[in-house]
Amino acid sequence: MTIMPKPSQNIPDRGIYERRESVVRSYSRAMPRQFNRAEHVWIHDDQGGRYLDFLAGCSTLNYGHNHPVLKQALLDYISADGITHGLDLHTDAKASFLEALETVILKPRGLDYRAMFTGPTGTNAVEAAIKLARKVTGRELVIAFTNGFHGMTLGALACTGNAAKRGGAGVPLSHVSHEPYDGYYGPDVDTADLLEQRLADPSSGLDAPAAIIVETVQGEGGLNAASPQWLRRIAAIAKRHGALLIVDDIQAGCGRTGGFFSFEEMGFTPDIVTLAKSLSGMGLPFALTLFRPELDQWSPGEHNGTFRGNNHAFVTADAALRHFWGDEGFIADVKRRGDLLAARLERLAADLGLSTRGRGMMRGIDVGSGEAAEAITSACFAQGLIIETSGAHDEIVKVLAPLVISDDELAAGLDILERCTRDVLAAAYDVAAE
Amino acid sequence: MTIMPKPSQNIPDRGIYERRESVVRSYSRAMPRQFNRAEHVWIHDDQGGRYLDFLAGCSTLNYGHNHPVLKQALLDYISADGITHGLDLHTDAKASFLEALETVILKPRGLDYRAMFTGPTGTNAVEAAIKLARKVTGRELVIAFTNGFHGMTLGALACTGNAAKRGGAGVPLSHVSHEPYDGYYGPDVDTADLLEQRLADPSSGLDAPAAIIVETVQGEGGLNAASPQWLRRIAAIAKRHGALLIVDDIQAGCGRTGGFFSFEEMGFTPDIVTLAKSLSGMGLPFALTLFRPELDQWSPGEHNGTFRGNNHAFVTADAALRHFWGDEGFIADVKRRGDLLAARLERLAADLGLSTRGRGMMRGIDVGSGEAAEAITSACFAQGLIIETSGAHDEIVKVLAPLVISDDELAAGLDILERCTRDVLAAAYDVAAE
Amino acid sequence: MTIMPKPSQNIPDRGIYERRESVVRSYSRAMPRQFNRAEHVWIHDDQGGRYLDFLAGCSTLNYGHNHPVLKQALLDYISADGITHGLDLHTDAKASFLEALETVILKPRGLDYRAMFTGPTGTNAVEAAIKLARKVTGRELVIAFTNGFHGMTLGALACTGNAAKRGGAGVPLSHVSHEPYDGYYGPDVDTADLLEQRLADPSSGLDAPAAIIVETVQGEGGLNAASPQWLRRIAAIAKRHGALLIVDDIQAGCGRTGGFFSFEEMGFTPDIVTLAKSLSGMGLPFALTLFRPELDQWSPGEHNGTFRGNNHAFVTADAALRHFWGDEGFIADVKRRGDLLAARLERLAADLGLSTRGRGMMRGIDVGSGEAAEAITSACFAQGLIIETSGAHDEIVKVLAPLVISDDELAAGLDILERCTRDVLAAAYDVAAE
Amino acid sequence: MTIMPKPSQNIPDRGIYERRESVVRSYSRAMPRQFNRAEHVWIHDDQGGRYLDFLAGCSTLNYGHNHPVLKQALLDYISADGITHGLDLHTDAKASFLEALETVILKPRGLDYRAMFTGPTGTNAVEAAIKLARKVTGRELVIAFTNGFHGMTLGALACTGNAAKRGGAGVPLSHVSHEPYDGYYGPDVDTADLLEQRLADPSSGLDAPAAIIVETVQGEGGLNAASPQWLRRIAAIAKRHGALLIVDDIQAGCGRTGGFFSFEEMGFTPDIVTLAKSLSGMGLPFALTLFRPELDQWSPGEHNGTFRGNNHAFVTADAALRHFWGDEGFIADVKRRGDLLAARLERLAADLGLSTRGRGMMRGIDVGSGEAAEAITSACFAQGLIIETSGAHDEIVKVLAPLVISDDELAAGLDILERCTRDVLAAAYDVAAE
Repeated sequence: MTIMPKPSQNIPDRGIYERRESVVRSYSRAMPRQFNRAEHVWIHDDQGGRYLDFLAGCSTLNYGHNHPVLKQALLDYISADGITHGLDLHTDAKASFLEALETVILKPRGLDYRAMFTGPTGTNAVEAAIKLARKVTGRELVIAFTNGFHGMTLGALACTGNAAKRGGAGVPLSHVSHEPYDGYYGPDVDTADLLEQRLADPSSGLDAPAAIIVETVQGEGGLNAASPQWLRRIAAIAKRHGALLIVDDIQAGCGRTGGFFSFEEMGFTPDIVTLAKSLSGMGLPFALTLFRPELDQWSPGEHNGTFRGNNHAFVTADAALRHFWGDEGFIADVKRRGDLLAARLERLAADLGLSTRGRGMMRGIDVGSGEAAEAITSACFAQGLIIETSGAHDEIVKVLAPLVISDDELAAGLDILERCTRDVLAAAYDVAAE
Repeated sequence: MTIMPKPSQNIPDRGIYERRESVVRSYSRAMPRQFNRAEHVWIHDDQGGRYLDFLAGCSTLNYGHNHPVLKQALLDYISADGITHGLDLHTDAKASFLEALETVILKPRGLDYRAMFTGPTGTNAVEAAIKLARKVTGRELVIAFTNGFHGMTLGALACTGNAAKRGGAGVPLSHVSHEPYDGYYGPDVDTADLLEQRLADPSSGLDAPAAIIVETVQGEGGLNAASPQWLRRIAAIAKRHGALLIVDDIQAGCGRTGGFFSFEEMGFTPDIVTLAKSLSGMGLPFALTLFRPELDQWSPGEHNGTFRGNNHAFVTADAALRHFWGDEGFIADVKRRGDLLAARLERLAADLGLSTRGRGMMRGIDVGSGEAAEAITSACFAQGLIIETSGAHDEIVKVLAPLVISDDELAAGLDILERCTRDVLAAAYDVAAE
Repeated sequence: MTIMPKPSQNIPDRGIYERRESVVRSYSRAMPRQFNRAEHVWIHDDQGGRYLDFLAGCSTLNYGHNHPVLKQALLDYISADGITHGLDLHTDAKASFLEALETVILKPRGLDYRAMFTGPTGTNAVEAAIKLARKVTGRELVIAFTNGFHGMTLGALACTGNAAKRGGAGVPLSHVSHEPYDGYYGPDVDTADLLEQRLADPSSGLDAPAAIIVETVQGEGGLNAASPQWLRRIAAIAKRHGALLIVDDIQAGCGRTGGFFSFEEMGFTPDIVTLAKSLSGMGLPFALTLFRPELDQWSPGEHNGTFRGNNHAFVTADAALRHFWGDEGFIADVKRRGDLLAARLERLAADLGLSTRGRGMMRGIDVGSGEAAEAITSACFAQGLIIETSGAHDEIVKVLAPLVISDDELAAGLDILERCTRDVLAAAYDVAAE
Repeated sequence: MTIMPKPSQNIPDRGIYERRESVVRSYSRAMPRQFNRAEHVWIHDDQGGRYLDFLAGCSTLNYGHNHPVLKQALLDYISADGITHGLDLHTDAKASFLEALETVILKPRGLDYRAMFTGPTGTNAVEAAIKLARKVTGRELVIAFTNGFHGMTLGALACTGNAAKRGGAGVPLSHVSHEPYDGYYGPDVDTADLLEQRLADPSSGLDAPAAIIVETVQGEGGLNAASPQWLRRIAAIAKRHGALLIVDDIQAGCGRTGGFFSFEEMGFTPDIVTLAKSLSGMGLPFALTLFRPELDQWSPGEHNGTFRGNNHAFVTADAALRHFWGDEGFIADVKRRGDLLAARLERLAADLGLSTRGRGMMRGIDVGSGEAAEAITSACFAQGLIIETSGAHDEIVKVLAPLVISDDELAAGLDILERCTRDVLAAAYDVAAE
């Protein structure tokens, strides 16, 4: 397999970014290339470089780049002058997507949800979810968790734990309490017990919540994976205290952790689920908020948005659901590859005295510091592997390979990762030993 | 010209919407058809109906549906496996779009802005704008205006005036004060004076603002158009009191009111501008926040989002800027059509004792009540014209025809509108007279 | 009449204040004396100085210092081991006060109010008032007015207009909108119309209010006196929009503007009234929140406070109500003296091209700037007159003489005020003329 | 010793309360008598009843009712026309109080604090404390604890844990996070560790705090006493994270727990201390906020209040400090009595399988439920003992006897308490056994 990274000095002047793009850009700093083409697990730069993509758009490209089935469906749709933009008008594309959602996803799983097409971003799906929870319950407080990430608009940002992101708000973020996630205080403290005690105590200062919002695996917060037992406890606590349970499945859903939803076979059903990222299948902006029909208490247009019906995304999402989720083949592959990934990471971690995080195809290795992690991902990039970090201190090197990756490609990427991790940590050890 | 509306009873069962789509949907209620194809100013349903589109995705389709130039650019890009999703990585598509923005739009207008790719929705662009203003000024209050509409996520929703939309928040909306827009208290009260007095008064209870956010024409709030003098006053007030001026040009920009920006040739330059809707040109989700380079004080990733680099939209936006804005032809056409539109509406209004609103190709007629307006738009739809309402009481019938509409098509649509308006108001008069 | 100011240089070292009292102290800076005794309208320092008191504890000493009737009642009570502190237990003192309130004040005025003993400060009475309004209406927004002052705890401070005081909060002050007071935009703009328009407009951004809180004369905000017509309009607007009308009568009540309540004979009845300052009669901490019985929807202890039953204040308040308000003599005197005061101030203002403010015995003169006002009050103090300023820029010299002042004493104080005003403004004119 | 309770049926009609006093009243419901006289530990009703007072104004009457030394000082002051009300003017009474505070309290303890005379209520002292902390640190969040009680105005109420009291706000209470108090999760969880972990974690969602506010013994929250080690940890955590430590000593201070301050000899010094309740000594409204001189960054009048200089309270507080705190006698008595109280309660608790709470003369017994506690206090009242409950469920019967109580009186009261506790619990046992 050919991986062909290109050194950045060959790159022609790109002053247009300096002149016209805000300094808020981030990934383009660590990967200073100009990309122009991508297919499957590969992304190409304009100097002929080819990179293996273990970032996958932060889990937006679970089916890889420009998957031929999805691409063809979209080309056909555009060629035929299919509706591109129609606000929330009914279109063939929307109807077909909804039918796929019903028959391919919901019915086989025994789930009865209504779909709300929010603005096509994850943060918008979260805003709609918490709005709905507040409306239905008549309460204001939302309980979120340490290290949770839910978006950057003010309502979702209030649910987000990261101090740097929170600080960007410029106003205090209110109406949310952040409680300790599963394992936050170590293995001996059951944080569900802590939450239950405070909610049951009329003098704890924790007001009655409208909702509890949780990721089953915290994508940005360090790939912490909650146990099924803990999640069932949280679901039960929500129910007992009249709060709605929102599972934010934006990063962990769409197959990343095995099932279509990350909470399948765990013994509880969320009241509300948010989806985005890999939902469109091809990386197009698309988001959904799903909820039990009894909760569908919106007035028409009470939450809306110009791009809430992204028909191109309906088309690719429809194709993705039917192509990948119609039988058990894809899911079996993902589970198998997830096990391969786990085995490789655990072996490496054991060798180096490190620990791993995550579940399914959403795993990482804790290398001890953000500095070490950045050194590793930089070294990987120089060898043609795109990979990023996660966690409160960016100390987790995370593997978010496309789910469609072949075993050989996965192994090739992990080889680079392993090599770079060993090198960087050995060098750090040498420095420390001097 | 053939307009072929179809009665809804011919439409096959669409229970999928009842079963699976949230009741929050709105436009599909007033236009109960299944649409499947669209080009130029026409949208087709699956029964062979053809409708003239005077809604244009609420000004998202200024260049009409599936404009052939944009469509071909997108087909070519997809066929060549161009990057679809790349977070904020540099891509050929992004570079080319930024170059078009610089050379076609900014330089000829003497504007020096940096572009921030926020999440691809208008509300996200607004959230980024007010975050930045709060960060740069260290202040918290934002001044917005009566009847303003800026989005549905909590930060933008706080800037929105509409009570029903605000009520959806489920929490009090803070850190924003709504001041009277130009003309709000009638022609004899200069509302800029009122604002100036309160800001200059240390005992007015109005805290020092981080920003003043304003639409030059209020798209959702009733097509109220502020005068250039008033806007200059507001710009001067913002400057004098250390606040940043944000022009929310999401609906009024991209040619809708004549120039690319709605504030051109008015004698002031906003500190921050938000764009979305017609920016991609083809209806794809895309939004920008522009600001003076000195304000570009973001930390990397301080505001981000999975879909902040929608490369498909870069491609169509790039094509749209180069195709429509490279010379003066398009803008001259728009101005001429805007004048035609104004003349027709004013004549009708004069005849019926009504009044008109708006500017450029963003105009409407105040028919006195939401009930009348709804009766008119329903009658129009039955005759094959898609048209909607605006305003605090939905009492304005608004014409948001694609800017590329031909004079004949515009006249045909206005004929339907005129006929239906006369009929509905005459019937109401008869009822009242009985 | 002997007024004997003492120069400050004779004053012994008072380092105890430098060492142990917070720099937050204010009046003691402008009046750097050590006071040790006071009766009637006179206050004495420890150097033998005697000062005429035109500040009267900011209207807390309407009956003067240590009025013999109140003083004797208190001495008798203490000597007899009357209950000093009893939380909210029933005591003879409380019962007698409530009976006086009922028979002397409420019944003759046809008012039917319940009394709530909040913590014994004005700010606490305001906090209780707005809490109750929010509870009863289920709404959150309170409408207050420009230049209003309602207290320094966070709930009341949010209703206060002054920027310096608001800034002390250290957090944004929410859930209150400040609307223009009567005359705020000059004589040609009816600010009640402005408020009505915004409340009637579902798109104005002004949420449905729980309460409108208003002072009939703004004590701290510049002695602005609202007209009865405007107040009736505000009362009607509150009623029409489902908001409770709170009159904050803390400074303007207890006879300061003529009647016991400042709103008597104006043709409207507030839903809630707050009282404090002169309520105890002798300057003891005491506050009341009065409201219509239908609004008395508190749960026991839902708002409480350790000092909510200040029995010493019950005793003196009881004595004050019975002594001063049992017949029409006192009120007639106050009205007559208010007219004298008005005539003197207006003559002076007319002479100097200035304007006056206020109503009853709560009047001032606008000397154009805070600097001039401070020069005048300093000059007055040097001549033995204690007098202070008010207004957004402290530009109003305000006369808050005890209501029991004799005509001669009032004239003596006004002579000093007039002399100092003329001198200061003449000197300023000379400086300006140079 | 004669205790002479009176049955309520002998009490004359008190319709004045029904007609004119708000239903918010609370203690007068459980003790439906009309009281008219009180001395030492005794309070008398108007039917000749005499009650032993184990409530002591919720620790406001640490020196008993109308202590002769304080009473005489006050009578002398009033008789001499001492200043009653002087805003924050310097008076002999204020100077003498500050000198007593300095020489009797601060210097012997090596404490260097400035005193701020806030409005004369505890809640006002707390509001001033958190305002100052926010101003000095430039931060907004305050950390308070489960079961904490700090007052009823909005700023202090946000720090209070009790749901019923919080609910009275009618608006969401923001800018405060409630963390678990010492022992909240049982003896095996060190809640200081939990707090430290969250503050050290940039992704915990807990923003950097301006202050940590804590009671060393939670008076309203159930007499939970924090250990010195835990308090030292909290002090260290505050310092490490740039937050100010506020000890709210309103109920636990003034000798209630042994020393004048409740934190003496614990090895840490708070940055800010609030005092109220027993500070005046005689039950007069009085409150203080003390802070390190470096923190005295107020502008003049930035926080003020009409009754901030309650001179009567200065007089009695001055007398109390000099009389009780000038030597070690009083404190030794209090400690000895506290030990007696502890021994009696612990013996009773051991007998009945119950547990005790508290420290010094601030102790209680957990009787398992609010119903049991109310039955016990009702039974006590019928036998002439005034005693109340505390805790999240009102399940703690609390003994807050005046500190000046004689050993015999203390024993007499405890005899009643013991008898009633045994009877009530035995009866409950019988009922349960049936």
